[in-house]
Amino acid sequence: MTKKDIIVLQDLLLSNAQAAAAIRAELEGRGILAVNLMSSPGAGKTTLLERIADRLRGRLKIAVIEGDIETERDAERIRAKGVPAWQITTGGACHLEAKMVGKILPLVPPDTAILFIENVGNLVCPASYDLGERLRLVLLSTPEGDDKPKKYPKAFTTAQALVLTKADLLSVLPFDVAKVKAEALDLNPRLEIFITSAVTGEGLDDLLAYLGRAGEEVRRRA
Amino acid sequence: MTKKDIIVLQDLLLSNAQAAAAIRAELEGRGILAVNLMSSPGAGKTTLLERIADRLRGRLKIAVIEGDIETERDAERIRAKGVPAWQITTGGACHLEAKMVGKILPLVPPDTAILFIENVGNLVCPASYDLGERLRLVLLSTPEGDDKPKKYPKAFTTAQALVLTKADLLSVLPFDVAKVKAEALDLNPRLEIFITSAVTGEGLDDLLAYLGRAGEEVRRRA
Repeated sequence: MTKKDIIVLQDLLLSNAQAAAAIRAELEGRGILAVNLMSSPGAGKTTLLERIADRLRGRLKIAVIEGDIETERDAERIRAKGVPAWQITTGGACHLEAKMVGKILPLVPPDTAILFIENVGNLVCPASYDLGERLRLVLLSTPEGDDKPKKYPKAFTTAQALVLTKADLLSVLPFDVAKVKAEALDLNPRLEIFITSAVTGEGLDDLLAYLGRAGEEVRRRA
Repeated sequence: MTKKDIIVLQDLLLSNAQAAAAIRAELEGRGILAVNLMSSPGAGKTTLLERIADRLRGRLKIAVIEGDIETERDAERIRAKGVPAWQITTGGACHLEAKMVGKILPLVPPDTAILFIENVGNLVCPASYDLGERLRLVLLSTPEGDDKPKKYPKAFTTAQALVLTKADLLSVLPFDVAKVKAEALDLNPRLEIFITSAVTGEGLDDLLAYLGRAGEEVRRRA
Protein backbone atom coordinates (compact mmCIF):
# COMPACT_ATOMS: atom_id res chain seq x y z
CA MET A 1 0.00 0.00 0.00
CA THR A 2 1.13 3.54 -0.69
CA LYS A 3 0.98 6.31 1.91
CA LYS A 4 -2.16 7.65 0.16
CA ASP A 5 -3.89 4.26 0.44
CA ILE A 6 -3.04 4.02 4.13
CA ILE A 7 -4.48 7.48 4.83
CA VAL A 8 -7.71 6.58 3.01
CA LEU A 9 -7.98 3.36 5.00
CA GLN A 10 -7.42 5.22 8.27
CA ASP A 11 -10.16 7.70 7.29
CA LEU A 12 -12.53 4.83 6.53
CA LEU A 13 -11.86 3.08 9.84
CA LEU A 14 -12.20 6.33 11.83
CA SER A 15 -15.50 7.14 10.16
CA ASN A 16 -16.65 3.54 10.81
CA ALA A 17 -15.64 3.77 14.48
CA GLN A 18 -17.70 6.95 14.90
CA ALA A 19 -20.76 5.37 13.30
CA ALA A 20 -20.29 2.25 15.44
CA ALA A 21 -20.10 4.29 18.65
CA ALA A 22 -23.39 6.01 17.78
CA ILE A 23 -25.07 2.65 17.07
CA ARG A 24 -23.83 1.19 20.37
CA ALA A 25 -25.12 4.21 22.29
CA GLU A 26 -28.53 4.01 20.63
CA LEU A 27 -28.97 0.24 21.03
CA GLU A 28 -27.77 0.15 24.62
CA GLY A 29 -30.02 3.12 25.42
CA ARG A 30 -32.90 1.02 24.09
CA GLY A 31 -31.79 -2.02 26.14
CA ILE A 32 -30.99 -4.11 23.05
CA LEU A 33 -28.03 -6.51 23.07
CA ALA A 34 -26.26 -6.42 19.68
CA VAL A 35 -24.27 -9.50 18.67
CA ASN A 36 -21.97 -9.56 15.62
CA LEU A 37 -21.46 -13.06 14.16
CA MET A 38 -18.32 -13.61 12.12
CA SER A 39 -16.99 -16.71 10.37
CA SER A 40 -15.89 -18.30 7.11
CA PRO A 41 -18.62 -19.02 4.57
CA GLY A 42 -20.59 -22.09 5.57
CA ALA A 43 -19.48 -22.31 9.19
CA GLY A 44 -23.13 -22.32 10.22
CA LYS A 45 -24.03 -18.75 11.22
CA THR A 46 -27.53 -18.81 9.71
CA THR A 47 -28.23 -22.33 10.96
CA LEU A 48 -27.18 -21.30 14.47
CA LEU A 49 -29.58 -18.34 14.26
CA GLU A 50 -32.38 -20.67 13.12
CA ARG A 51 -31.79 -22.88 16.17
CA ILE A 52 -31.66 -19.86 18.47
CA ALA A 53 -34.95 -18.59 16.98
CA ASP A 54 -36.57 -21.97 17.70
CA ARG A 55 -35.37 -22.06 21.30
CA LEU A 56 -36.20 -18.45 22.17
CA ARG A 57 -39.67 -18.45 20.55
CA GLY A 58 -42.18 -17.10 23.09
CA ARG A 59 -39.42 -16.30 25.59
CA LEU A 60 -37.33 -13.45 24.14
CA LYS A 61 -37.72 -11.32 21.01
CA ILE A 62 -34.86 -11.34 18.57
CA ALA A 63 -34.20 -9.65 15.24
CA VAL A 64 -31.53 -10.31 12.62
CA ILE A 65 -29.55 -8.22 10.16
CA GLU A 66 -28.10 -10.43 7.41
CA GLY A 67 -24.97 -9.40 5.52
CA ASP A 68 -24.13 -11.06 2.22
CA ILE A 69 -22.41 -10.22 -1.02
CA GLU A 70 -25.50 -11.23 -3.00
CA THR A 71 -28.93 -12.90 -2.53
CA GLU A 72 -31.68 -12.62 0.10
CA ARG A 73 -31.35 -16.31 0.97
CA ASP A 74 -30.27 -15.91 4.58
CA ALA A 75 -32.91 -13.30 5.48
CA GLU A 76 -35.58 -15.54 3.94
CA ARG A 77 -34.45 -18.45 6.15
CA ILE A 78 -34.71 -16.28 9.27
CA ARG A 79 -38.10 -14.79 8.31
CA ALA A 80 -39.39 -18.33 7.87
CA LYS A 81 -38.81 -18.69 11.63
CA GLY A 82 -41.12 -15.73 12.31
CA VAL A 83 -38.21 -13.44 13.18
CA PRO A 84 -37.82 -9.93 11.69
CA ALA A 85 -34.81 -9.98 9.34
CA TRP A 86 -33.27 -7.42 6.98
CA GLN A 87 -30.85 -8.37 4.24
CA ILE A 88 -27.93 -6.10 3.43
CA THR A 89 -26.32 -7.12 0.14
CA THR A 90 -22.92 -5.50 -0.14
CA GLY A 91 -22.63 -6.06 -3.88
CA GLY A 92 -19.03 -7.21 -3.63
CA ALA A 93 -17.77 -5.70 -0.38
CA CYS A 94 -16.26 -8.33 1.89
CA HIS A 95 -17.64 -7.11 5.23
CA LEU A 96 -20.42 -5.05 6.78
CA GLU A 97 -19.74 -1.48 7.89
CA ALA A 98 -21.41 0.38 10.74
CA LYS A 99 -23.21 2.80 8.43
CA MET A 100 -25.01 -0.07 6.71
CA VAL A 101 -26.22 -1.30 10.09
CA GLY A 102 -27.21 2.22 11.16
CA LYS A 103 -29.72 2.47 8.32
CA ILE A 104 -31.60 -0.57 9.67
CA LEU A 105 -31.85 0.61 13.31
CA PRO A 106 -35.12 2.58 12.90
CA LEU A 107 -36.78 -0.65 11.70
CA VAL A 108 -35.80 -2.76 14.74
CA PRO A 109 -38.91 -3.32 16.91
CA PRO A 110 -38.74 -1.60 20.35
CA ASP A 111 -39.32 -4.87 22.24
CA THR A 112 -36.30 -6.59 20.68
CA ALA A 113 -34.03 -8.16 23.30
CA ILE A 114 -31.20 -9.32 21.03
CA LEU A 115 -30.24 -7.96 17.61
CA PHE A 116 -28.02 -10.43 15.80
CA ILE A 117 -25.89 -9.09 12.95
CA GLU A 118 -24.69 -11.90 10.69
CA ASN A 119 -21.64 -10.61 8.88
CA VAL A 120 -20.50 -11.54 5.37
CA GLY A 121 -18.92 -15.01 5.38
CA ASN A 122 -15.26 -14.08 5.69
CA LEU A 123 -12.84 -14.87 8.50
CA VAL A 124 -10.61 -11.89 7.67
CA CYS A 125 -12.12 -8.49 6.81
CA PRO A 126 -15.14 -8.28 9.15
CA ALA A 127 -12.78 -8.41 12.15
CA SER A 128 -11.56 -4.88 11.34
CA TYR A 129 -15.02 -3.26 11.39
CA ASP A 130 -16.82 -2.45 14.64
CA LEU A 131 -20.57 -2.51 13.94
CA GLY A 132 -21.63 -1.11 17.29
CA GLU A 133 -22.09 -4.57 18.77
CA ARG A 134 -21.62 -5.40 22.45
CA LEU A 135 -20.62 -9.00 21.77
CA ARG A 136 -18.65 -10.39 18.90
CA LEU A 137 -18.92 -14.13 18.29
CA VAL A 138 -16.50 -15.92 16.00
CA LEU A 139 -17.75 -19.26 14.70
CA LEU A 140 -15.34 -21.99 13.61
CA SER A 141 -16.73 -25.20 12.13
CA THR A 142 -14.95 -28.48 12.75
CA PRO A 143 -14.46 -29.25 9.01
CA GLU A 144 -12.39 -26.06 8.64
CA GLY A 145 -9.62 -27.64 10.68
CA ASP A 146 -7.97 -27.11 14.02
CA ASP A 147 -5.16 -24.86 12.73
CA LYS A 148 -7.28 -21.79 12.04
CA PRO A 149 -7.01 -19.45 15.07
CA LYS A 150 -3.36 -18.50 14.58
CA LYS A 151 -3.74 -18.33 10.79
CA TYR A 152 -6.64 -15.86 11.08
CA PRO A 153 -5.85 -14.24 14.44
CA LYS A 154 -7.79 -10.98 14.37
CA ALA A 155 -11.22 -12.62 14.39
CA PHE A 156 -10.17 -14.52 17.52
CA THR A 157 -8.41 -11.67 19.34
CA THR A 158 -11.34 -9.27 18.87
CA ALA A 159 -14.17 -11.68 19.77
CA GLN A 160 -15.65 -12.23 23.23
CA ALA A 161 -16.71 -15.79 22.43
CA LEU A 162 -15.71 -18.64 20.12
CA VAL A 163 -18.50 -20.96 19.00
CA LEU A 164 -17.18 -24.24 17.62
CA THR A 165 -19.89 -25.53 15.28
CA LYS A 166 -20.65 -28.90 13.67
CA ALA A 167 -19.38 -30.83 16.70
CA ASP A 168 -21.50 -33.76 15.46
CA LEU A 169 -18.85 -34.29 12.75
CA LEU A 170 -16.01 -34.70 15.26
CA SER A 171 -16.24 -38.50 15.04
CA VAL A 172 -15.39 -38.44 11.31
CA LEU A 173 -12.89 -35.56 11.21
CA PRO A 174 -9.28 -35.12 12.32
CA PHE A 175 -10.02 -32.13 14.58
CA ASP A 176 -8.40 -31.66 17.97
CA VAL A 177 -10.74 -29.61 20.19
CA ALA A 178 -8.12 -29.23 22.94
CA LYS A 179 -5.61 -27.85 20.43
CA VAL A 180 -8.05 -25.24 19.10
CA LYS A 181 -9.05 -24.21 22.60
CA ALA A 182 -5.43 -23.79 23.68
CA GLU A 183 -4.52 -21.85 20.55
CA ALA A 184 -7.55 -19.56 20.78
CA LEU A 185 -6.95 -18.89 24.48
CA ASP A 186 -3.28 -18.20 23.78
CA LEU A 187 -4.44 -15.43 21.40
CA ASN A 188 -7.22 -14.23 23.69
CA PRO A 189 -7.18 -15.52 27.29
CA ARG A 190 -10.63 -14.05 28.08
CA LEU A 191 -12.40 -15.83 25.21
CA GLU A 192 -15.50 -17.83 26.20
CA ILE A 193 -15.67 -21.10 24.25
CA PHE A 194 -18.80 -23.08 23.34
CA ILE A 195 -18.77 -26.44 21.58
CA THR A 196 -22.00 -26.76 19.65
CA SER A 197 -23.93 -28.77 17.12
CA ALA A 198 -27.03 -27.58 15.32
CA VAL A 199 -27.80 -31.24 14.58
CA THR A 200 -27.69 -32.66 18.12
CA GLY A 201 -28.31 -29.40 19.99
CA GLU A 202 -25.09 -29.82 21.97
CA GLY A 203 -23.92 -26.62 23.63
CA LEU A 204 -26.85 -24.46 22.57
CA ASP A 205 -28.30 -24.10 26.08
CA ASP A 206 -24.97 -22.90 27.43
CA LEU A 207 -24.61 -20.41 24.59
CA LEU A 208 -28.15 -19.10 25.12
CA ALA A 209 -27.55 -18.75 28.86
CA TYR A 210 -24.45 -16.68 28.09
CA LEU A 211 -26.37 -14.46 25.65
CA GLY A 212 -29.22 -14.17 28.16
CA ARG A 213 -26.86 -12.92 30.88
CA ALA A 214 -25.31 -10.37 28.50
CA GLY A 215 -28.80 -9.20 27.46
CA GLU A 216 -29.88 -8.75 31.08
CA GLU A 217 -26.84 -6.64 31.79
CA VAL A 218 -27.61 -4.37 28.82
CA ARG A 219 -31.24 -3.98 29.94
CA ARG A 220 -30.22 -3.27 33.55
CA ARG A 221 -27.91 -0.46 32.41
CA ALA A 222 -30.33 1.01 29.84
CA MET B 1 -17.14 4.49 -0.46
CA THR B 2 -16.32 8.08 -1.36
CA LYS B 3 -15.12 9.13 -4.82
CA LYS B 4 -11.58 9.38 -3.41
CA ASP B 5 -11.73 5.78 -2.12
CA ILE B 6 -12.96 4.53 -5.48
CA ILE B 7 -10.11 6.26 -7.33
CA VAL B 8 -7.55 4.74 -4.95
CA LEU B 9 -9.09 1.28 -5.45
CA GLN B 10 -9.02 1.69 -9.23
CA ASP B 11 -5.34 2.71 -9.03
CA LEU B 12 -4.59 -0.34 -6.92
CA LEU B 13 -6.35 -2.71 -9.31
CA LEU B 14 -4.70 -1.14 -12.38
CA SER B 15 -1.27 -1.44 -10.82
CA ASN B 16 -2.08 -5.04 -9.87
CA ALA B 17 -3.22 -5.85 -13.40
CA GLN B 18 0.05 -4.53 -14.82
CA ALA B 19 2.13 -6.59 -12.40
CA ALA B 20 -0.01 -9.66 -13.16
CA ALA B 21 0.46 -9.25 -16.91
CA ALA B 22 4.25 -9.15 -16.44
CA ILE B 23 4.16 -12.29 -14.28
CA ARG B 24 2.02 -14.14 -16.82
CA ALA B 25 4.39 -13.19 -19.64
CA GLU B 26 7.44 -14.31 -17.68
CA LEU B 27 5.97 -17.62 -16.49
CA GLU B 28 4.50 -18.56 -19.84
CA GLY B 29 7.78 -17.64 -21.52
CA ARG B 30 9.43 -20.12 -19.15
CA GLY B 31 6.78 -22.77 -19.94
CA ILE B 32 5.42 -22.79 -16.38
CA LEU B 33 1.69 -23.24 -15.75
CA ALA B 34 0.55 -20.96 -12.91
CA VAL B 35 -2.55 -22.02 -10.97
CA ASN B 36 -4.25 -19.74 -8.42
CA LEU B 37 -6.23 -21.64 -5.74
CA MET B 38 -9.01 -19.73 -4.02
CA SER B 39 -11.48 -20.84 -1.33
CA SER B 40 -12.84 -20.23 2.14
CA PRO B 41 -10.56 -21.09 5.06
CA GLY B 42 -10.40 -24.84 5.59
CA ALA B 43 -11.87 -25.92 2.25
CA GLY B 44 -8.81 -28.09 1.73
CA LYS B 45 -6.40 -26.15 -0.51
CA THR B 46 -3.24 -27.27 1.27
CA THR B 47 -4.45 -30.84 1.61
CA LEU B 48 -5.24 -30.94 -2.12
CA LEU B 49 -1.71 -29.71 -2.84
CA GLU B 50 -0.27 -32.41 -0.57
CA ARG B 51 -2.17 -35.07 -2.53
CA ILE B 52 -1.07 -33.57 -5.85
CA ALA B 53 2.54 -33.56 -4.64
CA ASP B 54 2.26 -37.26 -3.76
CA ARG B 55 0.79 -38.19 -7.13
CA LEU B 56 3.15 -36.12 -9.28
CA ARG B 57 6.34 -37.13 -7.44
CA GLY B 58 8.90 -38.30 -10.00
CA ARG B 59 6.62 -37.35 -12.90
CA LEU B 60 6.33 -33.55 -12.94
CA LYS B 61 8.03 -30.82 -10.90
CA ILE B 62 5.79 -28.49 -8.99
CA ALA B 63 6.38 -25.52 -6.70
CA VAL B 64 4.04 -23.71 -4.35
CA ILE B 65 3.58 -20.14 -3.16
CA GLU B 66 1.55 -20.07 0.06
CA GLY B 67 -0.47 -17.01 1.04
CA ASP B 68 -1.66 -16.59 4.61
CA ILE B 69 -2.43 -13.81 7.04
CA GLU B 70 -0.02 -15.29 9.57
CA THR B 71 2.13 -18.42 10.19
CA GLU B 72 4.38 -20.58 7.98
CA ARG B 73 2.22 -23.64 8.63
CA ASP B 74 1.09 -24.25 5.06
CA ALA B 75 4.54 -23.85 3.49
CA GLU B 76 5.95 -26.26 6.08
CA ARG B 77 3.35 -28.88 5.11
CA ILE B 78 4.27 -28.55 1.43
CA ARG B 79 8.04 -28.63 2.08
CA ALA B 80 7.51 -31.84 4.05
CA LYS B 81 6.45 -33.34 0.70
CA GLY B 82 9.81 -32.41 -0.85
CA VAL B 83 8.28 -29.58 -2.89
CA PRO B 84 9.77 -26.05 -2.96
CA ALA B 85 7.40 -23.71 -1.14
CA TRP B 86 7.54 -20.04 -0.18
CA GLN B 87 5.27 -18.52 2.43
CA ILE B 88 3.91 -15.02 1.94
CA THR B 89 2.36 -13.73 5.17
CA THR B 90 0.21 -10.72 4.40
CA GLY B 91 0.08 -9.51 8.01
CA GLY B 92 -3.63 -8.79 7.85
CA ALA B 93 -4.36 -8.31 4.14
CA CYS B 94 -7.17 -10.56 2.97
CA HIS B 95 -5.73 -11.59 -0.42
CA LEU B 96 -2.49 -11.95 -2.34
CA GLU B 97 -1.50 -9.28 -4.86
CA ALA B 98 0.56 -9.77 -8.00
CA LYS B 99 3.55 -7.81 -6.69
CA MET B 100 3.89 -10.23 -3.76
CA VAL B 101 4.01 -13.13 -6.22
CA GLY B 102 6.44 -11.26 -8.49
CA LYS B 103 9.05 -11.14 -5.72
CA ILE B 104 9.09 -14.96 -5.54
CA LEU B 105 9.47 -15.62 -9.28
CA PRO B 106 13.31 -15.48 -9.36
CA LEU B 107 13.34 -18.32 -6.80
CA VAL B 108 11.15 -20.71 -8.83
CA PRO B 109 13.37 -23.52 -10.25
CA PRO B 110 13.67 -23.48 -14.08
CA ASP B 111 12.40 -27.06 -14.43
CA THR B 112 9.10 -26.32 -12.66
CA ALA B 113 6.08 -27.49 -14.67
CA ILE B 114 3.31 -26.14 -12.44
CA LEU B 115 3.49 -23.26 -9.97
CA PHE B 116 0.57 -23.38 -7.56
CA ILE B 117 -0.34 -20.18 -5.75
CA GLU B 118 -2.48 -20.90 -2.71
CA ASN B 119 -4.32 -17.70 -1.91
CA VAL B 120 -5.38 -16.48 1.54
CA GLY B 121 -8.44 -18.43 2.75
CA ASN B 122 -11.21 -16.08 1.69
CA LEU B 123 -13.99 -16.65 -0.82
CA VAL B 124 -14.42 -12.92 -1.49
CA CYS B 125 -11.39 -10.65 -1.90
CA PRO B 126 -8.90 -12.88 -3.79
CA ALA B 127 -11.33 -13.04 -6.72
CA SER B 128 -10.61 -9.37 -7.52
CA TYR B 129 -6.83 -9.79 -7.85
CA ASP B 130 -5.21 -11.33 -10.92
CA LEU B 131 -1.91 -12.90 -9.85
CA GLY B 132 -0.67 -13.66 -13.36
CA GLU B 133 -2.10 -17.17 -13.27
CA ARG B 134 -3.28 -19.04 -16.34
CA LEU B 135 -5.81 -21.11 -14.38
CA ARG B 136 -7.89 -20.10 -11.44
CA LEU B 137 -9.39 -22.91 -9.35
CA VAL B 138 -12.11 -22.23 -6.83
CA LEU B 139 -12.50 -24.92 -4.15
CA LEU B 140 -15.79 -25.45 -2.34
CA SER B 141 -15.97 -28.03 0.44
CA THR B 142 -19.16 -29.99 1.00
CA PRO B 143 -19.55 -28.87 4.66
CA GLU B 144 -19.78 -25.23 3.48
CA GLY B 145 -23.18 -25.94 1.97
CA ASP B 146 -24.72 -26.08 -1.48
CA ASP B 147 -25.96 -22.46 -1.50
CA LYS B 148 -22.55 -20.80 -1.86
CA PRO B 149 -21.98 -20.05 -5.59
CA LYS B 150 -24.65 -17.36 -5.91
CA LYS B 151 -23.84 -15.90 -2.48
CA TYR B 152 -20.16 -15.48 -3.43
CA PRO B 153 -20.42 -15.19 -7.21
CA LYS B 154 -17.16 -13.54 -8.24
CA ALA B 155 -14.96 -16.48 -7.25
CA PHE B 156 -17.12 -18.71 -9.45
CA THR B 157 -17.48 -16.37 -12.43
CA THR B 158 -13.72 -15.72 -12.65
CA ALA B 159 -12.51 -19.31 -12.21
CA GLN B 160 -11.85 -21.84 -14.96
CA ALA B 161 -12.56 -24.80 -12.69
CA LEU B 162 -14.54 -25.62 -9.56
CA VAL B 163 -13.13 -28.31 -7.32
CA LEU B 164 -15.69 -29.69 -4.89
CA THR B 165 -13.70 -31.07 -1.96
CA LYS B 166 -14.49 -33.43 0.95
CA ALA B 167 -16.84 -35.53 -1.19
CA ASP B 168 -16.28 -38.34 1.34
CA LEU B 169 -18.54 -36.40 3.73
CA LEU B 170 -21.50 -36.36 1.31
CA SER B 171 -23.09 -39.34 3.05
CA VAL B 172 -23.41 -37.41 6.33
CA LEU B 173 -24.18 -33.92 5.01
CA PRO B 174 -27.24 -32.27 3.43
CA PHE B 175 -25.39 -31.20 0.26
CA ASP B 176 -26.95 -31.42 -3.19
CA VAL B 177 -24.17 -31.83 -5.78
CA ALA B 178 -26.56 -31.38 -8.72
CA LYS B 179 -27.82 -28.09 -7.26
CA VAL B 180 -24.30 -26.70 -6.84
CA LYS B 181 -23.30 -27.77 -10.33
CA ALA B 182 -26.37 -26.15 -11.87
CA GLU B 183 -25.88 -22.93 -9.90
CA ALA B 184 -22.17 -22.69 -10.69
CA LEU B 185 -22.77 -23.36 -14.40
CA ASP B 186 -25.55 -20.78 -14.42
CA LEU B 187 -22.97 -18.23 -13.23
CA ASN B 188 -20.22 -19.53 -15.49
CA PRO B 189 -21.24 -21.96 -18.26
CA ARG B 190 -17.62 -22.80 -19.18
CA LEU B 191 -16.62 -23.88 -15.67
CA GLU B 192 -14.99 -27.31 -15.44
CA ILE B 193 -16.21 -29.17 -12.34
CA PHE B 194 -14.34 -31.86 -10.39
CA ILE B 195 -15.79 -33.76 -7.45
CA THR B 196 -12.94 -34.80 -5.21
CA SER B 197 -11.95 -36.28 -1.90
CA ALA B 198 -8.48 -36.12 -0.40
CA VAL B 199 -9.49 -39.05 1.84
CA THR B 200 -10.65 -41.53 -0.84
CA GLY B 201 -8.74 -40.03 -3.79
CA GLU B 202 -11.95 -39.60 -5.78
CA GLY B 203 -11.63 -37.20 -8.70
CA LEU B 204 -7.91 -36.48 -8.27
CA ASP B 205 -6.85 -38.32 -11.44
CA ASP B 206 -9.31 -36.31 -13.52
CA LEU B 207 -8.14 -33.06 -11.97
CA LEU B 208 -4.49 -33.95 -12.59
CA ALA B 209 -5.24 -34.89 -16.20
CA TYR B 210 -6.86 -31.47 -16.66
CA LEU B 211 -3.86 -29.69 -15.12
CA GLY B 212 -1.51 -31.83 -17.21
CA ARG B 213 -3.23 -30.80 -20.44
CA ALA B 214 -3.12 -27.13 -19.46
CA GLY B 215 0.58 -27.46 -18.61
CA GLU B 216 1.36 -29.10 -21.96
CA GLU B 217 -0.35 -26.26 -23.77
CA VAL B 218 1.74 -23.68 -21.89
CA ARG B 219 4.96 -25.57 -22.68
CA ARG B 220 4.03 -25.94 -26.36
CA ARG B 221 3.48 -22.20 -26.70
CA ALA B 222 6.57 -21.18 -24.68
